[in-house]
Amino acid sequence: MSTIKKVVLAYSGGLDTSAIVPWLKENYGCEVVAFVADVGQGAEELAGVEEKAIASGASECHIVDLKEEMVANYIYPTLKTGSIYEGTYLLGTSMARPIIAKAQVEVARKVGADALSHGCTGKGNDQVRFESCFAALAPDLKVIAPWREWDLSSRESLLDYLAERNIPCAASATKIYSRDANAWHISHEGGELEDPWCQPSDQVWTWTNSPEQAPNEPELVSISVEKGEIVAVNGEQLSPYQCLVKLNELAAPHGVGRVDIVENRLVGMKSRGCYETPGGTVMMAALQAIDELVLDKASRKWKETLGGEFAHLVYDGRWFTPLKDSILAAAEAFAEFASGEVVLKMYKGQVVAVQKKSPNSLYSEDFATFGADDVYDQSHAEGFIRLFSLSSRIAALKK
Amino acid sequence: MSTIKKVVLAYSGGLDTSAIVPWLKENYGCEVVAFVADVGQGAEELAGVEEKAIASGASECHIVDLKEEMVANYIYPTLKTGSIYEGTYLLGTSMARPIIAKAQVEVARKVGADALSHGCTGKGNDQVRFESCFAALAPDLKVIAPWREWDLSSRESLLDYLAERNIPCAASATKIYSRDANAWHISHEGGELEDPWCQPSDQVWTWTNSPEQAPNEPELVSISVEKGEIVAVNGEQLSPYQCLVKLNELAAPHGVGRVDIVENRLVGMKSRGCYETPGGTVMMAALQAIDELVLDKASRKWKETLGGEFAHLVYDGRWFTPLKDSILAAAEAFAEFASGEVVLKMYKGQVVAVQKKSPNSLYSEDFATFGADDVYDQSHAEGFIRLFSLSSRIAALKK
Amino acid sequence: MSTIKKVVLAYSGGLDTSAIVPWLKENYGCEVVAFVADVGQGAEELAGVEEKAIASGASECHIVDLKEEMVANYIYPTLKTGSIYEGTYLLGTSMARPIIAKAQVEVARKVGADALSHGCTGKGNDQVRFESCFAALAPDLKVIAPWREWDLSSRESLLDYLAERNIPCAASATKIYSRDANAWHISHEGGELEDPWCQPSDQVWTWTNSPEQAPNEPELVSISVEKGEIVAVNGEQLSPYQCLVKLNELAAPHGVGRVDIVENRLVGMKSRGCYETPGGTVMMAALQAIDELVLDKASRKWKETLGGEFAHLVYDGRWFTPLKDSILAAAEAFAEFASGEVVLKMYKGQVVAVQKKSPNSLYSEDFATFGADDVYDQSHAEGFIRLFSLSSRIAALKK
Amino acid sequence: MSTIKKVVLAYSGGLDTSAIVPWLKENYGCEVVAFVADVGQGAEELAGVEEKAIASGASECHIVDLKEEMVANYIYPTLKTGSIYEGTYLLGTSMARPIIAKAQVEVARKVGADALSHGCTGKGNDQVRFESCFAALAPDLKVIAPWREWDLSSRESLLDYLAERNIPCAASATKIYSRDANAWHISHEGGELEDPWCQPSDQVWTWTNSPEQAPNEPELVSISVEKGEIVAVNGEQLSPYQCLVKLNELAAPHGVGRVDIVENRLVGMKSRGCYETPGGTVMMAALQAIDELVLDKASRKWKETLGGEFAHLVYDGRWFTPLKDSILAAAEAFAEFASGEVVLKMYKGQVVAVQKKSPNSLYSEDFATFGADDVYDQSHAEGFIRLFSLSSRIAALKK
Repeated sequence: MSTIKKVVLAYSGGLDTSAIVPWLKENYGCEVVAFVADVGQGAEELAGVEEKAIASGASECHIVDLKEEMVANYIYPTLKTGSIYEGTYLLGTSMARPIIAKAQVEVARKVGADALSHGCTGKGNDQVRFESCFAALAPDLKVIAPWREWDLSSRESLLDYLAERNIPCAASATKIYSRDANAWHISHEGGELEDPWCQPSDQVWTWTNSPEQAPNEPELVSISVEKGEIVAVNGEQLSPYQCLVKLNELAAPHGVGRVDIVENRLVGMKSRGCYETPGGTVMMAALQAIDELVLDKASRKWKETLGGEFAHLVYDGRWFTPLKDSILAAAEAFAEFASGEVVLKMYKGQVVAVQKKSPNSLYSEDFATFGADDVYDQSHAEGFIRLFSLSSRIAALKK
Repeated sequence: MSTIKKVVLAYSGGLDTSAIVPWLKENYGCEVVAFVADVGQGAEELAGVEEKAIASGASECHIVDLKEEMVANYIYPTLKTGSIYEGTYLLGTSMARPIIAKAQVEVARKVGADALSHGCTGKGNDQVRFESCFAALAPDLKVIAPWREWDLSSRESLLDYLAERNIPCAASATKIYSRDANAWHISHEGGELEDPWCQPSDQVWTWTNSPEQAPNEPELVSISVEKGEIVAVNGEQLSPYQCLVKLNELAAPHGVGRVDIVENRLVGMKSRGCYETPGGTVMMAALQAIDELVLDKASRKWKETLGGEFAHLVYDGRWFTPLKDSILAAAEAFAEFASGEVVLKMYKGQVVAVQKKSPNSLYSEDFATFGADDVYDQSHAEGFIRLFSLSSRIAALKK
Repeated sequence: MSTIKKVVLAYSGGLDTSAIVPWLKENYGCEVVAFVADVGQGAEELAGVEEKAIASGASECHIVDLKEEMVANYIYPTLKTGSIYEGTYLLGTSMARPIIAKAQVEVARKVGADALSHGCTGKGNDQVRFESCFAALAPDLKVIAPWREWDLSSRESLLDYLAERNIPCAASATKIYSRDANAWHISHEGGELEDPWCQPSDQVWTWTNSPEQAPNEPELVSISVEKGEIVAVNGEQLSPYQCLVKLNELAAPHGVGRVDIVENRLVGMKSRGCYETPGGTVMMAALQAIDELVLDKASRKWKETLGGEFAHLVYDGRWFTPLKDSILAAAEAFAEFASGEVVLKMYKGQVVAVQKKSPNSLYSEDFATFGADDVYDQSHAEGFIRLFSLSSRIAALKK
Repeated sequence: MSTIKKVVLAYSGGLDTSAIVPWLKENYGCEVVAFVADVGQGAEELAGVEEKAIASGASECHIVDLKEEMVANYIYPTLKTGSIYEGTYLLGTSMARPIIAKAQVEVARKVGADALSHGCTGKGNDQVRFESCFAALAPDLKVIAPWREWDLSSRESLLDYLAERNIPCAASATKIYSRDANAWHISHEGGELEDPWCQPSDQVWTWTNSPEQAPNEPELVSISVEKGEIVAVNGEQLSPYQCLVKLNELAAPHGVGRVDIVENRLVGMKSRGCYETPGGTVMMAALQAIDELVLDKASRKWKETLGGEFAHLVYDGRWFTPLKDSILAAAEAFAEFASGEVVLKMYKGQVVAVQKKSPNSLYSEDFATFGADDVYDQSHAEGFIRLFSLSSRIAALKK
């Protein structure tokens, strides 16, 4: 097929990438280096992953801890823009892709590889995200996407493929849901979810309690924000990743952060997904509460524009582009003001900001209420209204 | 002051407008016609309002039922745009203002008035909304805004003013919250809410149960949507206003639709408000669910732009402008596709769409899943990705 | 390769499509129906085209006159949005593609074809535009793009291919520029233009005089606009297509409408093109002049957003989409006001509106100048300014 | 009226501000400090200005040279955003206001003033711009706007006012046009321009030749751009202000940069203005040419959004706001790439970029043309098109 010598594969330890290792060796005659990104998907998923990789035929396995960097340099910046894809999706899978791609390229450079590979299917967004990042970071490296090449199209055929090669694999022949997890969220697709008229069953959700199962008592959590970043939870100063872990622990029992949507994939089709983002949902609510206090009307409107653009950019995997730098710079200018404290109430699936304050708050009891003051003379309102509506008045008079 | 002969006052029967009637007569030497808009604020508020108006000195009182027209021609169009002000506020007060202003102008024309008056304060949005609509609809009529003119600045002074004139008024000298209600929502300001660090107390809320008080069992509601409009609830065909009433009844017990925010007023300051929009919140969730099924990626992105612009337009009272016609026309083009059925679950303050279908759905199990099909050949993805990321690749190669 | 029986080819009579006819027959074993769209490319290009098609081996040749429909239903709507791609390009090639595709599909339906074909290269925008329109209008028809399949990669090889088959062709072996013409414009690519540091030579331009060659006397032209459409030139009522022809005749001698740009193609690369759009440039200037008179500030800002979105949509060939309907509906709402008369001066490459009036003009000498008036009381300005800048004042005071 | 002790007046030496000096002293009983901003309005306007100020009764006169700072910190940043107000106006007056206001506040702080004053009329934009900047920079200082207070409403009455006080003034009783000049541009209003159906006469224009009077030979000029800033003209390294002066000298004889428009003022009315911006028009064309080379499709589209927002922001005088920082930061991210060389041809009122190159150019002859290459495989186009148009295909199939 080509003359590839060494390929770095984004390896998960699951069925797909376990089969990809031997497939790459057989079909490209190349050495395969396994690369495992630790983005907080959990100890369970990482347990024994190196051994599995070697057992599958990988020559080396590089496990890279990206947890802190992902939250600090990918999630927090995205939060500053207020991005929510199509009104609902908190971009959990999307935000992890660029950092994984970047770390994978770094491993490729270190081991002198001439190609990159991944286990994304040919119908999803992730192939686009990974390969767009590869194009920006390593346009010289060849990309192999086995799912678009091979004819192994079912779990059974993959298991057979491994069995024929005596490669051990604990995967079962049937798996209802396709899931993807990192520190920020877990996603669920497949099974009964493929019919949007079908309610998600209880087995879909894995991180959070259902609202019905959640405690009957609400719980308050206090969040400290500095320049658009969460820096403390309940008064405890924590790193970005630790903040996220802490908030996941607090919010998941209350059923906070479940979403069930039909979304537009970048590749032109729709898909239905269920997402659990407990800590992230709390973070979003806290940041929104601070924005309420510190951003003026025109700034909040503009920030909505920023978030709208950035959400698509992140979803589409266009992270390493000038457009990302531009929108992010705009959001960071606003984040300068986003400091303060928010108390949120978690209860039965909801999180609501119930107290908020900021040193940069533009809110003032004195200005907003009836009393006389120097800043706002009620007589000013007439002039404002007359000019604000002048073009309407002129248009009406001209008729 | 001027030579006004007859003024039509937007009269509510409350303390403020009760005092405005005699004040207008005394200060402008004019006849005062009371105009009461029935926008669904409730029988209690309307009870005896005509008698009160006459007792205050009004020569006539016109009560106009605007409920169906408001929902059909102001709220439903706004819903088609997906407008949510500053991410949270469902524009309940804002949407009622243009129709009230329009009906008030119609009364003014009928009775041959040469002026219009309202009881809005000089620090709020409503004065701008009313007077902007007046400017567009009746630029020849003079506008009198007593709150910007008189020196009656407290409830006590208003009560004294009425007492001196022997005008009966049941209002009490103290009132903690300032509230505004119509069929869509009720708003609350004032009292402890003036400090955003202060949680709203239970007395704030009047329409909905708290999530804690809500039933322990979830309730499902089924909504039928036709071309962007809610036409039936639980299978029962209803008029727009009836749909709203029905959904208010269903959702309020579950605590659905409470919002507590600091928002940017049009007049340049921030204010803190609590809103209850039970039925409206369900409507929004239903329409969003249909959009998920029927709008492609670029269309949904554009619709977010429409909603972002329209929310400010409605909030600002710029209803009778060419900009309104333009954005609304754009939204109505999308609403052509927005038909279908949504089942939503109401529970403890939340409403979530759990089932959705549409004859115009672009979602297809066949396309989205792994199986081979004619529409989507996985090998197409490579070409897509290569061109989608081509400018990144070129930029990287040029470096 | 497949089982295609009858294909309708968008045939131009040029070298490429002359070779495509026999190539389709040989490679797909199918009947080839030639379809020629008359979009105003000129009598010269159409002369003998049917004979040529038959000589090449086509079984039939359908020549369809699309000139009036193209201007009325594709160009005029686009003009209403104010679309200009990347600040400069008047979308001449782009606007012609959807109507050609639509007419081609209609021919395919009439003759019972099962496939469509075109002569667009694999690196350009036009393949995307054609095939996107085909996808929307005839997803059941197969599409054959010979340039992406065959290995005929030079004019010489195409000429040899025809010579071997004794198909006559007057094309020369060398051709410097690649050109595309319709009633609206002619484009030029290739030759020395491939280096953006190279000035276009005189041979590039074919429709217009250079500014240097243009007459030394300016010429005035008067344009009548009704609801956003040009309806008369110099007082003569004309159809849309006739208006365009007339304005081309008037403007081309004055060197109006030349553009020389590097643009971003949809397929991810940049290209350099020179365009001549004499009449269209005059039309744009006239419509802009009317907008100056009739649209208020917020409306003009919004219209810029419409034009920005629509320009990309048209450029990308996304004509038959809900997004097109939405943006166009928004623009048409504004076009209701766009009536009036504009006099423009053409001189040495420039066209400038020098006189403009509209029955819907919001401009009024009385309002804009110093004299006292009822509409605008200068004292209102203070109130306006105070509230307009209130959030800045509050922010400053809070510091 | 109040207790103002010392006011700093933005003084021009013209009739209006000459009268304002004594008027302020008489009406506010305060000391008046004249502040003259040198923004490049020309030696003629500045000649003897200090003497005039003292003769009018000012206690001091501070002349501050703002020319370099204005171009470097106000004009160049605005250029980076690509802002053009309502499609045509290069914001000449608008960009000068914030720096004048800022310098005026600095003088006020230095001399311990408690108020600021200006000579802007009550119907224009400049009062809003000045006072919005004052609100942001010095909310504690009182603002006096004589034109909104006094009853001197004609040139005659102003001259009489001065004559009564024996204050010498060379101004004539009649003045047809109202003009405003700085290094970037000169504006003209009034006279026959008040009728948009009236062509501007030759007396309107003062800086540029008419296209008809311009030389019969075109002239080339070469511009060097570094990170979005013009740094050299014809190979000569110059400061920002010097670049502008040089380009004004080169472009004005060729009639470049004339604009004649009806625009929407911020205060709700329309006005007609003629502007001459010779050097600025060349700068804009040069920067647009570089952007053509270095920005990808999505980035250019986004930059249009930035420019659209920023143009209104600058026009409205909202310079000292968080929104300005945000949009500018976004534009500066793109400016990183905007380096290169552009040669432009000036001839008979037009300036056209005829040669352009950039080290960051994304254009490549190799990619754009027919030859085979590694970067772009034509077969990729099919996959791209299939996915790009997939939602259209699905929608069509679903029908």
